Amino acid sequence: MSIRVGIDLGGTNIKIGLVDENYRIVRRSSVPTGSDHSFMTVMDRIQAGVNDILDGQIPESIGIGVPTTVLDRRIAVDTPNLDWKNCDVASEMERRFPNVICAVGNDADCAALGESLAGAGREYDSMVLLTLGTGVGGSVVYNGKVLLGDHGCGVEIGHMKVQDGGEVCGCGGKGCLESYASATAVKREIMRAVESTEETVLKDWVLREGRTVGARMMFDAAEAGDAIGKRMLENYIHYLAVGVSNCVLLYRPQTIVLGGGIAAAGDVLFGPLNEQAKELTYGADLLGCPKAVPALLGNDAGIIGAAYI
Amino acid sequence: MSIRVGIDLGGTNIKIGLVDENYRIVRRSSVPTGSDHSFMTVMDRIQAGVNDILDGQIPESIGIGVPTTVLDRRIAVDTPNLDWKNCDVASEMERRFPNVICAVGNDADCAALGESLAGAGREYDSMVLLTLGTGVGGSVVYNGKVLLGDHGCGVEIGHMKVQDGGEVCGCGGKGCLESYASATAVKREIMRAVESTEETVLKDWVLREGRTVGARMMFDAAEAGDAIGKRMLENYIHYLAVGVSNCVLLYRPQTIVLGGGIAAAGDVLFGPLNEQAKELTYGADLLGCPKAVPALLGNDAGIIGAAYI
Repeated sequence: MSIRVGIDLGGTNIKIGLVDENYRIVRRSSVPTGSDHSFMTVMDRIQAGVNDILDGQIPESIGIGVPTTVLDRRIAVDTPNLDWKNCDVASEMERRFPNVICAVGNDADCAALGESLAGAGREYDSMVLLTLGTGVGGSVVYNGKVLLGDHGCGVEIGHMKVQDGGEVCGCGGKGCLESYASATAVKREIMRAVESTEETVLKDWVLREGRTVGARMMFDAAEAGDAIGKRMLENYIHYLAVGVSNCVLLYRPQTIVLGGGIAAAGDVLFGPLNEQAKELTYGADLLGCPKAVPALLGNDAGIIGAAYI
Repeated sequence: MSIRVGIDLGGTNIKIGLVDENYRIVRRSSVPTGSDHSFMTVMDRIQAGVNDILDGQIPESIGIGVPTTVLDRRIAVDTPNLDWKNCDVASEMERRFPNVICAVGNDADCAALGESLAGAGREYDSMVLLTLGTGVGGSVVYNGKVLLGDHGCGVEIGHMKVQDGGEVCGCGGKGCLESYASATAVKREIMRAVESTEETVLKDWVLREGRTVGARMMFDAAEAGDAIGKRMLENYIHYLAVGVSNCVLLYRPQTIVLGGGIAAAGDVLFGPLNEQAKELTYGADLLGCPKAVPALLGNDAGIIGAAYI
């Protein structure tokens, strides 16, 4: 039985798993990334963590997902959260683990591959993953391979323009999907409502009760029957449907998987989302429209995917 | 030397070519599609035309590009221009040419494959073709294979929303790329200018001189220094740049090839287009931005691509 190592490198923790041929994590550990984020120090910690979990076994390969753009499946470009700059992660790993094949992937691409192999996409040949978090990450998998394209750097679905000239995005552009469908966008809308002259329960929750401003609050306000909250949720779902519909037309996947905190909202999100995405999609009357479904594996997706990247 | 047959089926003519291993058309013919567009009648004409050009040779394969959605590389769905409805073109071809492999592709996908193998994309591993005509067709090629996706029906780049809620598209949607970047969109803008109260040379050309309203007229007006014409061209290029930029982010191709009449405009189009697409593309400072270039093969692309679909 061959075994692979999958590593999910985050700013806080390094999650390491031994992944078997059935895409199951048979052993796992988590070590702190540490406050010294320099390349060699982090690599030392990864090496120690991997050796510890391997306990003498020789893996077929080691894959690592990093929170940044990756070139040619080897080099991590500009990692602000880790103080890395154009680090050749694969070569450094191969130096530390001689005779083992090492590969590097973007963390979102690894998560997509994991969901595709073992999670919400496991019964399909093709899948798009949209991760609805601080930003909107996106990744496409066809037949067990991530669509990486030129430079091997993967796609940037969150920064496609869906409303050219619209809301300002974190990237500096205007009208990117991310500027409507991310948790950051929801927070912006909540703060606008709080600062507006309109009547809304959001003012009480934020100004008087000091509740944490986040996507959950939008769902709560809508559920409480708050008019502003309901409009905000409708608008959010509308733009997410535009993004899903564009992905259907541009990738023709068999399913669209939504990850990140917002995707945990359940039917209140997925019901109207799938209805609207179908309406928006040219040719859906003829070809149907693949349904958006929630991701299944949570953080494990990144470990499993990294092992097979 | 093996030879393949490529067929480009249009509403007016059926173009047939013998294509060699170097993607050259070594023999060609064109027969009228005829006024009777029924499936069997058109297939009779195709069979006669292919037999005529083959002159006894046995081809390795026969491929045919049709102006509609194709399912599973075999079935032409709903072809309004030809009065066809869900015709199994591949099986009918195989019945008429026993022992020859037959395949069917969308005509835009065939053109993209042709440009990729032998035209503007021949030095690249990946390419997006956008055809700027009555509509906006789009197709993606990676390593000599068209991205077909689920149902094998290919992508619909022209109907991605770039300005959600914007101009009405022929598909019924609002804000599709096609509703800004097609020749139809240019005509709409020209007629708006003609019917407006603003001063523009377009009124003279259309109302007094009776010139044909088309994309050429927009370029002519801009070149003549007409303020409305210049603004129209700027706006056109802006939206096309949004489309190109979205394609760069979503497919990571090595090049973007523009076909159709508008793409013949030259530097006045491609200069500002490439500048703006780069500005709009997240990460282009780091990764660069592949340049949009004009298609090279004209109608031959569809024949060459069909032979290899």
